[in-house]
Amino acid sequence: MAQKPSIPKGTRDFSPVEMSKRNYIFDTIKSVFTLHGFHQIETPAMENLSTLMGKYGDEGDKLLFKILNSGDFLSNVNDEQLAERNSTKLMRSIAEKGLRYDLTVPFARFVVQHQNEIKFPFKRFQIQPVWRADRPQRGRYREFYQCDADVIGTDSLLNEVDLLQIIDEVFCRFGINIAIKLNNRKVLSGIAETIGEPDKIVDITVAIDKIDKIGIDNVNAELLDKGISQKAVEQLQPVLTLSGSNEDKLNSLATLLANSEVGMKGIEELRFVMNKTNEIGVKATIDLDPSLARGLNYYTGTIIEVKALDVEIGSITGGGRYDNLTGVFGLDNVSGVGISFGADRIYDVLNQLDLYPEATRTTTKVLFVNFGEAEATASLKHIKKLRASGISAEIFPESSKMRKQMGYANDNGIPFVAIIGETELANGTIMLKDMNLGTQQPLTIDEVIEKLK
Amino acid sequence: MAQKPSIPKGTRDFSPVEMSKRNYIFDTIKSVFTLHGFHQIETPAMENLSTLMGKYGDEGDKLLFKILNSGDFLSNVNDEQLAERNSTKLMRSIAEKGLRYDLTVPFARFVVQHQNEIKFPFKRFQIQPVWRADRPQRGRYREFYQCDADVIGTDSLLNEVDLLQIIDEVFCRFGINIAIKLNNRKVLSGIAETIGEPDKIVDITVAIDKIDKIGIDNVNAELLDKGISQKAVEQLQPVLTLSGSNEDKLNSLATLLANSEVGMKGIEELRFVMNKTNEIGVKATIDLDPSLARGLNYYTGTIIEVKALDVEIGSITGGGRYDNLTGVFGLDNVSGVGISFGADRIYDVLNQLDLYPEATRTTTKVLFVNFGEAEATASLKHIKKLRASGISAEIFPESSKMRKQMGYANDNGIPFVAIIGETELANGTIMLKDMNLGTQQPLTIDEVIEKLK
Repeated sequence: MAQKPSIPKGTRDFSPVEMSKRNYIFDTIKSVFTLHGFHQIETPAMENLSTLMGKYGDEGDKLLFKILNSGDFLSNVNDEQLAERNSTKLMRSIAEKGLRYDLTVPFARFVVQHQNEIKFPFKRFQIQPVWRADRPQRGRYREFYQCDADVIGTDSLLNEVDLLQIIDEVFCRFGINIAIKLNNRKVLSGIAETIGEPDKIVDITVAIDKIDKIGIDNVNAELLDKGISQKAVEQLQPVLTLSGSNEDKLNSLATLLANSEVGMKGIEELRFVMNKTNEIGVKATIDLDPSLARGLNYYTGTIIEVKALDVEIGSITGGGRYDNLTGVFGLDNVSGVGISFGADRIYDVLNQLDLYPEATRTTTKVLFVNFGEAEATASLKHIKKLRASGISAEIFPESSKMRKQMGYANDNGIPFVAIIGETELANGTIMLKDMNLGTQQPLTIDEVIEKLK
Repeated sequence: MAQKPSIPKGTRDFSPVEMSKRNYIFDTIKSVFTLHGFHQIETPAMENLSTLMGKYGDEGDKLLFKILNSGDFLSNVNDEQLAERNSTKLMRSIAEKGLRYDLTVPFARFVVQHQNEIKFPFKRFQIQPVWRADRPQRGRYREFYQCDADVIGTDSLLNEVDLLQIIDEVFCRFGINIAIKLNNRKVLSGIAETIGEPDKIVDITVAIDKIDKIGIDNVNAELLDKGISQKAVEQLQPVLTLSGSNEDKLNSLATLLANSEVGMKGIEELRFVMNKTNEIGVKATIDLDPSLARGLNYYTGTIIEVKALDVEIGSITGGGRYDNLTGVFGLDNVSGVGISFGADRIYDVLNQLDLYPEATRTTTKVLFVNFGEAEATASLKHIKKLRASGISAEIFPESSKMRKQMGYANDNGIPFVAIIGETELANGTIMLKDMNLGTQQPLTIDEVIEKLK
């Protein structure tokens, strides 16, 4: 029953070389999270569909992977339901679980479910895969990792400052030059209010969010098309053409939004976050961008987006503050702020800029050539000592031709080969070959340990 | 739309404390795998059902979680199929993907799919969750992690020796006393052959595998019940009552199986693996156990099982050699041998024996109390220096009551609290409180770094 094996479209296998790079990314992010006092949690891959449905809009509901109920899943379905042939309705009867779509909704569910055990403020991070039945395309996968950090149960803006420092530190460690774009949902509300179109905030922000892509004229056309008045569009122009330093922009915004309480509150928050961050010092450029929206219906305060400066790619990290994430699960008034690193895009950026450190690839340090049973036994005793000193070592499992064994060392990027032949067996030494230099020298096991440590 | 949130039965959330313990387990196993030259891979959570179905027996097929096709999954289903109301048949038309059930079948698929990129022998490890629609019960989950290491593309018994060393090293690091039970499928074949019932090998091994649980009389009754002749059962008795040292047992077996070529081959393999392992030296007890079977239809040579000596629990690690794992995917003659650590059971054993190292819980090293904006700003600058020195530090985000802030440090097990009040602000010092000792002293930031490093 030979089959040609493959994997579902949009999913990936990761080879040892790819895993080394991915682990470097995850380990770096994880160690910065930990340095800042965040604690790791994990949630199940499967959530009840009642937890997931309705949280990502109609489109999101469609993109959820649903899991067929176990056993006779038709037992609770009546004939009329079947005759109707309505997949969407039938799904509700035959599938109760789905794969998580992001880490945010499961986190909200976690907080509400465990609210009596959790001490607030709760600083958690989570690095796990998510699944979306999106149409697969270059750079878009049906299974990918998210790396999220959130602080929940506090509305202090010091949390925003901390998250910006985390972003700065992570990309410093990666060696990726970034610009952090910053905005505040309250500024967007203030703008809509000031131009007399408070109810059209979604249309306005969706339109102005595209200004980098389609230009100011097309943004204006779209605004008019959405029924925003000519006068309002005119009033909006100063916001779209803000220039100068962040301080200049904040001052201009303060003039423009002077009559909007919520707008002024947003400016105050932005000013605090920017000033405090600058005072402590970050390496990244921080740009105030009043057109930045990102998942507007979700964020209620600070909005953050990170771009790589030296590679053309979408945002590589994003986040913001939400005031009522857990409300949908019955726990109100819990404010939180979080960021999410896009591991797959960071992977691509590090590849394109060739920024992986030399030591990323974890390999065996030394391979012992296998010349036969007596030599192998002597080698295994040496290998035991090497491993006890923390040096990864292995023996080629078969006494194959020398060329094959050396080929194995080459293929696996093993930098040293140890040879125990008749001479070495007799005098208890090891002939150590440096695969990069091509040189070799006879050493005692202690000397080998010293050299490779 | 408040809902009482919960998670699917048989699944678990992991809190920060639990994650620290789990990470300790995974990190320990991973570092030993790496020390022995194994390389990590990952495969997707979802596999095509054509890859998974038929690999785990009929019962296994039922325990696979199937994923409903996206979009209008009924579009390819005709009315007759629906009218039939046969869940098993309908499933094939509406679900093409399933969640992985173990790491072995996806690994076999991986090897065949990537056979042109892989250099053999290929030593891979994989630490990922698997999913089974088993009835949840104490200690049995529907989502759990497996930690597998396999060497594929070599039939050298040195690989068995290496895997036994890995097992020994991992449990040494954990501080868990273990016994490793060893057998060889060829010995089981030899026994069936010798007692004249070669076709009944499955019934024989299933029965004798239970000897520890049900006793020799019940094993004999089951054998007769399965149609094994009285004479054969009598001939089997010496095997069931083997005693003495491993060497004694091997000698007795060699006498009993003298006329079985395959049996003698099995004894030779066992002898090699045991002698070589003893020669290099392991701390664990190794027990030859000719009744050990474990997933018989799968293993073709060495069979390994690990028991914890100080806790009543099932096997905590197992493995063995298989000669044709990839044959089902069209790649023949690839021999492999592997082991799988049971992370969940190891977690329970470490808990019961209270063996987690003190440092397992990763916490913030020092919390800065927040007395207001000026103090917070000074604290943030100190915190930046601490983090740059690798010391995890954080500030309480709000200038709440002292009691609340100290409570946060207590709840999160933070060992030091730094206080920047008026005095400290004025003279640039830090009052550092040791939460365990209850003592405090004024220090400079450099002294704090020195102390906490």
